[in-house]
Formats: sequence, structure tokens, C-alpha cells
Amino acid sequence: MREAVLRAAGDALAEHGFAHLDLAEVARRAQVGKTTVYRRWGTVTALLADLLDDMAEQSEPRTETGTLLDDLAANAALVCRTLTDPRQGALFKAVIAAATCDTTAAEALHRFYAARVAEWAPCVRQAADRGEVPADTDPEQVIRAVSAPLYYQLLTTGAPLDRAAAERAARSAYAAACAGVFRREQ
Amino acid sequence: MREAVLRAAGDALAEHGFAHLDLAEVARRAQVGKTTVYRRWGTVTALLADLLDDMAEQSEPRTETGTLLDDLAANAALVCRTLTDPRQGALFKAVIAAATCDTTAAEALHRFYAARVAEWAPCVRQAADRGEVPADTDPEQVIRAVSAPLYYQLLTTGAPLDRAAAERAARSAYAAACAGVFRREQ
Repeated sequence: MREAVLRAAGDALAEHGFAHLDLAEVARRAQVGKTTVYRRWGTVTALLADLLDDMAEQSEPRTETGTLLDDLAANAALVCRTLTDPRQGALFKAVIAAATCDTTAAEALHRFYAARVAEWAPCVRQAADRGEVPADTDPEQVIRAVSAPLYYQLLTTGAPLDRAAAERAARSAYAAACAGVFRREQ
Repeated sequence: MREAVLRAAGDALAEHGFAHLDLAEVARRAQVGKTTVYRRWGTVTALLADLLDDMAEQSEPRTETGTLLDDLAANAALVCRTLTDPRQGALFKAVIAAATCDTTAAEALHRFYAARVAEWAPCVRQAADRGEVPADTDPEQVIRAVSAPLYYQLLTTGAPLDRAAAERAARSAYAAACAGVFRREQ
């Protein structure tokens, strides 16, 4: 039942955005009783938070290539694939928009990205062990540096999130990490 | 009259977000006749687009320090100042949210950032002339690389946009530019 409702909520968000998310409409799409949905989630914000927690659990595991640059490139390609997927891209835009005006949505979004960053952080620790980047490099800063230009491009320019954008994001984070920009004591 | 209406629209957006922007309410706040506002702008989206075009014109000019790293640090500090200002920060979140679900708002937002990027791009061209970065470095990529982590942090984490975040953004873009990540032919 939860799966059907979250799927329906994701579809509705991707199609119409957060401002038009409505529990009754989600229940209808999911073919679940309206009362059940109201009783379990109560508000659209609580439903959105549950959807984001579920998305964090369902996310793809990281790729391990043996070198930091290739690991970061795999991460950048995954982010691009997600953001250029019609349903997922619209869904992410909708939840980011929701987070700008709702604290509960913002906290759920922060948890989602924290989980994604934690999933990929070990590749930076491994690279530090191999001596590719300074030992005191903050792994989470490096992973966030890969996503940042891709999300920024999605939200503030009309430019396509193509393979060149993904490669630039990975190479940029890698160059900064090697230069010691993400060292903890800095 | 335009100034009063745009000021009122910005205030309303910062306080209540795009979903609750209403031309009659903006007219009331600006102490301007409702009919005048409807006749001149017609829709909230057109008003938002005009506000963004005005913000692009009013923005602060760039700082020239003589070195690329310090120019980028000045840019990062300006972006942080803007995004941490209570009114401006809320306003930017609201227009980014609007752009996720409205094409006219998205185009106005793209124009706004294109204008800001064009204002700062010459510091990269000057750095290329001085030999600080490869001659075929794309100046706009470098300037966007400074803003990206700051906007990403604003939208996806709860972490404060402090001086350390601004310095990291500038140093990261600088390191990537020096490493040739933003060369045009790449």
C-alpha cells in the first residue's frame, strides 16, 4: 500500500509540482482509500518527507572503479541520468521547490542528500588511503562538489545536462580535491 | 510606479513565496491601482520576469583585485552576502522555486544569471591574458563554478553559507580552472 501511494505521490509531483499535491488525488491515483491515506500521512508535507526517505533507501549503490576520478565520473553520470530522466528530473525540481517554502520538506530533502553523499563518501576515503588526495580531505565536500554544478545548471540555466557537463563536474571536483581545497583544517 | 510595484512584488515573494503571489495584493502593498498593475503586467509570471530583469540591472558591479583567486573570492563573498540576506535569500529561493514549474519564470531566471555571469566573466579573460589559467578557458564556466556550490548548499543542505563556504567555492573554481577543466575544447 505504501509503495502504491508513494509511487502515485511521485507521479503527481512530477506532473503538477508541489503546490498542487493533494492527498485525495494521490489516494485516487493509488487506488487506495482516502481515509487510509489521511490517517497514515495526514499532510502533503509528511507524504513528501516519506517519499524522500523511500527514495534515499531505493537509490542506486555507488560504483567502485579503482580511481577517484573514475568514481567521481560514475557519480556525476548517475546524477545526470537522474536529473535528465523526465519523471525523476521533474520530481527533483518539485521537491527542491517544496523545500524552499516548507521546513519539513527541507529537512527531508537534507536527509535525502545526506544519505546519497554518505553512500559515495567511501570512494574519497579510499582515494585518500591510496594517496590520491590529501589524507584529511573531507569526503562529503568532494561528493557534494560533483553534484553542485549539475543541480546549479538544472535550476539556473537552460543548458543541457549532457556527458560534457558530467565530465566537467567530476574533473572539477577531482582537481579541487587534489589541490587540497576540501581538507578539513582549511 | 514600476519601482514601487517591483519592490512590493519582491517583498511579497520573500514573505510568502511564488505560489501565493497575487497581483491585487502587490498593488495594495505598492499603493498603486489594481487596474494599473493588471494592465501593465497582466500575470504574476510577467511581473516576476520584470522583477528579475530589474534585479539583473540593479546588481552590484564586479570587484577587480588583480588576481583571479581574489576576484573569484570577491564574487563568492557577494553571492554569499546575497543568499544570506534575509529578504534577498528568501527572494532567490522563491524565484528558483517559481522557475521549476513555470517556463516564463525559468527564462527570466536564466537571463538574470546570464547577466550576472557576463558581468564577472572579464576577470577570467584578464587572468587568461596574465597566464594564470589556460588561454582557452571558458570564462562563464569558471564564474558559474563559483556560484554552484553556494546555491547547492542553500537548496540541499542546512549548512550555513559562511566565510569558509565562500572561500572553498572560490578556491575550488580556481583550482579547476588552473587544471584546465574549463578549457573550451575539453
